[in-house]
Amino acid sequence: KMSQCAAKLKVSPLEAYRAFHGTDASLRSGYTHLFGGLKPGVDRAAAVELRRLCRTGIHTTQTSGVAPGFVQANFVMLPKEYAFDFLLFALRNPKACPILAVTNPGDPCPHNVAPGADVTKDIPKYRVWRDGELSEECTDVSHLWTDCMVGFLLGCSFSWEGKLSLLGLSPRHIDQACTVPMYRSNIRNNPVGPFAGDLVVSMRPYTPDGAIKAAHITGCYPGAHGGPIHWGDPKKLGIEDLDEAEWGNTVDVHEGEVPCFWACGVTPQTAIQEARLPLAVTHAPGHMFVCDVTDDELFVATDPDHSFGR
Amino acid sequence: KMSQCAAKLKVSPLEAYRAFHGTDASLRSGYTHLFGGLKPGVDRAAAVELRRLCRTGIHTTQTSGVAPGFVQANFVMLPKEYAFDFLLFALRNPKACPILAVTNPGDPCPHNVAPGADVTKDIPKYRVWRDGELSEECTDVSHLWTDCMVGFLLGCSFSWEGKLSLLGLSPRHIDQACTVPMYRSNIRNNPVGPFAGDLVVSMRPYTPDGAIKAAHITGCYPGAHGGPIHWGDPKKLGIEDLDEAEWGNTVDVHEGEVPCFWACGVTPQTAIQEARLPLAVTHAPGHMFVCDVTDDELFVATDPDHSFGR
Repeated sequence: KMSQCAAKLKVSPLEAYRAFHGTDASLRSGYTHLFGGLKPGVDRAAAVELRRLCRTGIHTTQTSGVAPGFVQANFVMLPKEYAFDFLLFALRNPKACPILAVTNPGDPCPHNVAPGADVTKDIPKYRVWRDGELSEECTDVSHLWTDCMVGFLLGCSFSWEGKLSLLGLSPRHIDQACTVPMYRSNIRNNPVGPFAGDLVVSMRPYTPDGAIKAAHITGCYPGAHGGPIHWGDPKKLGIEDLDEAEWGNTVDVHEGEVPCFWACGVTPQTAIQEARLPLAVTHAPGHMFVCDVTDDELFVATDPDHSFGR
Repeated sequence: KMSQCAAKLKVSPLEAYRAFHGTDASLRSGYTHLFGGLKPGVDRAAAVELRRLCRTGIHTTQTSGVAPGFVQANFVMLPKEYAFDFLLFALRNPKACPILAVTNPGDPCPHNVAPGADVTKDIPKYRVWRDGELSEECTDVSHLWTDCMVGFLLGCSFSWEGKLSLLGLSPRHIDQACTVPMYRSNIRNNPVGPFAGDLVVSMRPYTPDGAIKAAHITGCYPGAHGGPIHWGDPKKLGIEDLDEAEWGNTVDVHEGEVPCFWACGVTPQTAIQEARLPLAVTHAPGHMFVCDVTDDELFVATDPDHSFGR
């Protein structure tokens, strides 16, 4: 049945993605030239307040559903000597690692997405990695910040999940009140220096019509993973069993639906673990950095044909 | 008369540019998510052949007019320890430094724009800078390339000058068979690490109607400086006398025309000189790297309102 459903769709974007992916032709950032920055006249108090609660140790739990409408971001912090390789890794793997902000070395404020913020204090929970092993979790890493550290904020699919729900395309894991299922794919990331690893994908099932609509919508958020990279047979991504999610929870795929796969923000985290840097910091899963940027500001009108597989 | 002409235009994009520019909101690359990479079925032999002639020491002169239709790029090569700061500098100053390619450390091939090329051999003439001073000019810098060097290719306005000419908007310096006039502006680049300096601008005069058309066309080439950053009074850019170009030649501005200013690829070169790195290499002026990418492939359809000042 899955193959019948898939046949009603345009051909999967997977092959286009693979072809494009391996060529290094993907140098671009999540912020495109179409991104207009923070517009005046928008009330950003909810994001500022949430970060204040994180900084003062009052909010230490997950950020799902908090400050709705504001962009939530994955966080990576590492020594400057690895920062060039990681920045280039992100630019070369933009579907998985859409760059929203890079701090100046020594300055923990991501001025373009959250003026006044401090990436070492304003996330509810951090993970500290030493030689690729989880060393500790804590709610403040300002003691690890020096002039030699650089912080990165990377886009997250939260930015379009609300939009999908509003349009009647609620992701299944939201209906089932659990975490999106994530899988390690058989696509190797474009490697740079010590950073490599496999592309991690998230899965949301849709009917063929729903998948096309979801692809068009998510393709307008290149700063939040953009459109899906595959739909249909999970084996083409090396996924043997959809019921064996490596991260998150398994969700039901109903009759008449096809699984749809998006590049996932866990990708850079696994790349960082595998790089075994002497020191690196990430956010704890689900404990994201909340930006002043709204999800709407991350939207860029895009020709649907451009969003497939890129 | 100039002020009357300027009044017929929309308001200059300069203030929007300044506002956007200082905020670090400009993180993005010349390659946007809309750039599709090298398409199959295009004959790229002219670019490949030109690079072969450079590599073998047969072509050692300027590249203006050679391999027409192919993207020509500014070149920068520097030690990896400065590569993060320079890459971030380019991302933070994308109008002046639209990134087309970054080589992997140690690999002199810019795979995404010229498979098979070698940036250390395929440019007709290089300039070697030591401590910010011109040390020598040569036609091959492969002896300076090590695993610790990184090469950058940055877009160039050549990509749209031909298109402007085709549409009856021939830049004046082309009609006068000279080099475009370039001026140091009073806009400081967004600094990163040792890289700072002033934005350098190129000037082309147009009637108000011509300027609007030229802005719309060039705005569709974010990988080649995009749309103009100012038109009208040169003093707003700190330029006292248009007849005193710091680089290139002075051109005539006819009655009924306004000077129009674009961000210029000399900007990164001055930033690199001022950074006084122990070693850096650039192309010699006018001796560009010729890519396999066609000018048409660098075109991305853009809402004109997005191209102004960004």
